[in-house]
Amino acid sequence: MDANVVTREPVLACWTQGTGCSAIQEMMSVANRSDVISLALGLPAAELFPAKKIAEAAGSVLGTDPFALQYGFPFQPLKAHIVKLMAARGVACREEQVFLTSGAQQGLSLLIRLLLNHGGEVLCEEIIYTGFQQAVEPYEPSILTVPTDLDTGIDVAAVERILDKTRPAFIYIIADGHNPMAVSLSREKRRRLVELASGYGVPIIEDDPYGFINYEDGPGEPPLRALNESWVFYVGTFSKILAPALRTGWIVLPKALVPPISIIKEASDLNICTLNQRAISAYLDAGHLTAHTETLRRVYGERRSAMLDALEEHFPHGSRWRRPASGLFVWVDLPEPLDMRVLLKTAVETEGVAFIPGQAFAINQTSGQSTSMRLNFSNSNPTQIDEAIARLARAVKRTLAGHSLSVSSS
Amino acid sequence: MDANVVTREPVLACWTQGTGCSAIQEMMSVANRSDVISLALGLPAAELFPAKKIAEAAGSVLGTDPFALQYGFPFQPLKAHIVKLMAARGVACREEQVFLTSGAQQGLSLLIRLLLNHGGEVLCEEIIYTGFQQAVEPYEPSILTVPTDLDTGIDVAAVERILDKTRPAFIYIIADGHNPMAVSLSREKRRRLVELASGYGVPIIEDDPYGFINYEDGPGEPPLRALNESWVFYVGTFSKILAPALRTGWIVLPKALVPPISIIKEASDLNICTLNQRAISAYLDAGHLTAHTETLRRVYGERRSAMLDALEEHFPHGSRWRRPASGLFVWVDLPEPLDMRVLLKTAVETEGVAFIPGQAFAINQTSGQSTSMRLNFSNSNPTQIDEAIARLARAVKRTLAGHSLSVSSS
Repeated sequence: MDANVVTREPVLACWTQGTGCSAIQEMMSVANRSDVISLALGLPAAELFPAKKIAEAAGSVLGTDPFALQYGFPFQPLKAHIVKLMAARGVACREEQVFLTSGAQQGLSLLIRLLLNHGGEVLCEEIIYTGFQQAVEPYEPSILTVPTDLDTGIDVAAVERILDKTRPAFIYIIADGHNPMAVSLSREKRRRLVELASGYGVPIIEDDPYGFINYEDGPGEPPLRALNESWVFYVGTFSKILAPALRTGWIVLPKALVPPISIIKEASDLNICTLNQRAISAYLDAGHLTAHTETLRRVYGERRSAMLDALEEHFPHGSRWRRPASGLFVWVDLPEPLDMRVLLKTAVETEGVAFIPGQAFAINQTSGQSTSMRLNFSNSNPTQIDEAIARLARAVKRTLAGHSLSVSSS
Repeated sequence: MDANVVTREPVLACWTQGTGCSAIQEMMSVANRSDVISLALGLPAAELFPAKKIAEAAGSVLGTDPFALQYGFPFQPLKAHIVKLMAARGVACREEQVFLTSGAQQGLSLLIRLLLNHGGEVLCEEIIYTGFQQAVEPYEPSILTVPTDLDTGIDVAAVERILDKTRPAFIYIIADGHNPMAVSLSREKRRRLVELASGYGVPIIEDDPYGFINYEDGPGEPPLRALNESWVFYVGTFSKILAPALRTGWIVLPKALVPPISIIKEASDLNICTLNQRAISAYLDAGHLTAHTETLRRVYGERRSAMLDALEEHFPHGSRWRRPASGLFVWVDLPEPLDMRVLLKTAVETEGVAFIPGQAFAINQTSGQSTSMRLNFSNSNPTQIDEAIARLARAVKRTLAGHSLSVSSS
């Protein structure tokens, strides 16, 4: 800046010019209105939190462990529990490869700082979790995008074409219960994507908040990390299987990268949420988690079915959706494109139901018309879900009618 | 990178080349050894944590507040408490200017991301808290440094000479209980520094982990934020006045900057440690904090006196130190420079006492000889402190003798 010019307001970093209120933040406000049924956010069901058992675990830790409130190292016994959790998903890892974080978003954010230079390149899908987009934004990166198939996941041939030309800092993927598109990656694509990563020397960040909650029989496909320990950096969390407010997650990564990522964590927030780490470890010691995740699978599975049934009953002919194998969302495409801002306004203000338009998750957001929306089923009971989908269907039909009217009158 | 070259190891972001194990991380390991009395870290006294009252507060929150474990907004009643805490320090602020963080290090790290461009300039003292240095390192900034007077603090004339030539993204300052130099900024320098900030249009980040723990009679000088609400961004924390593992702190900043910093927090870790926020708020509702900080002032004050007395008794003639008005450290200069690596090795391995060499906090670290060390007094009782200083004095004398020997024999 010219040293002769005195500004009257603090000057912010350049990248902040492009930021506004996030879609998630906007919807947090709407979701709190008592007249609105919200299918917008990816909230777990609060009524299922094992609050009593967590309070017991925390109370026991505070009563017996004098270091529970002090600065301290990551809590080693929790790492041992995480190794067992990963083994149950088919992933072999060691405690020295586990790094504890304040939830999956921090895991993601630390890995990005570890791998991405300012102005560097990253590779992801065209439509992807907004938290990922926020986390890379300050680096002002070139975002290389590939399409997604709604039945099998990311387009691996398109990934290969990009890697043939350039080497992005990493590939970002949600292999199970994709947010927002609700697809789980096919076995063949998992294998191929990991081959590409190791063949071209480009690491994969595998973001897996939902993989422990699957609805089909059997354990499902193992995460990408099961296929390669050198090139897949796995991000996990207790937010969806236990409680988000505990802010505890983990990364599984090569042992050699633990020291540099420790430095990044220390610079971010000093690496020391040891109290919650100890409380979760005590909860796991007591053996409560298996029964709890079984409950979540059953209850969320019923809610998923309720949503699919309600869509079948209420939504206009020609709408399309898939049955998600895991995660908290159904991705719905309407029979014709419409102005999602109009639909959202009608849905919230006239019908009292909230959702997030699919376009809000697009890397290249356009203001034009689109067909897709993300609907959450974990945070409402089956009766609420049926009512919400009926309301949303009325809003869709009204908006489609208005749209036809404006098309025919123009 | 050349797309034809396939790497055999993941390529990390360029800035990570310069990082190693931090001095703090190294000393955490030493501090855990039972045969070592550690004066190295800035740990609060674990035996003073109000563990029972915090457990009661957390238990009460988990028993009565169904949203305590859910994703959620920052907890508003805690902001009201923070407004009152700030008022007690002489700072007038409003709840809408308070932003909750996971501790002071996160507050610092979020403000840096808000203000600093990659490769930008920052202004700070030559010897300063290493966590600040770690937090700016990924931005590969130009760090403009000014000296510090051990009686009155940062050299404001040197600050003015720099601002006359260029506009750094911010000025970083610890006005009370400076880490590591233990100085508190004089009233005149506080006034002048804030004038320079607003006159030149350069914000101040005021990092204040220690200001609530002062040892002299009366309330002490108010923080810089009391003098200007537009150009001073204040960082506070419950880590030193309550417990570090609760990971809860705050920023006081202009209301207009709350939305952009919320986005940065969301991208970092989703903004949602609501459980600990509610537990702290419940603890404050019960009115426990005033008595607790009084206890800390009294006990830490006794430890400060014990350290000053022990230095007087044991340390070699010509050593110098000041009586700190607040904070957790004494900064000691030896009568002549020596190789601090040799002294530290002798201190830890032969005498069983740990400290951090002053040079470890220097922006421009040199491998040469130096005179200064940072000694913590909060985490040992008076008997331990007297023993530790006696041990350290023996290590100093032995190293000085070896030094004289090597000088005379060379």
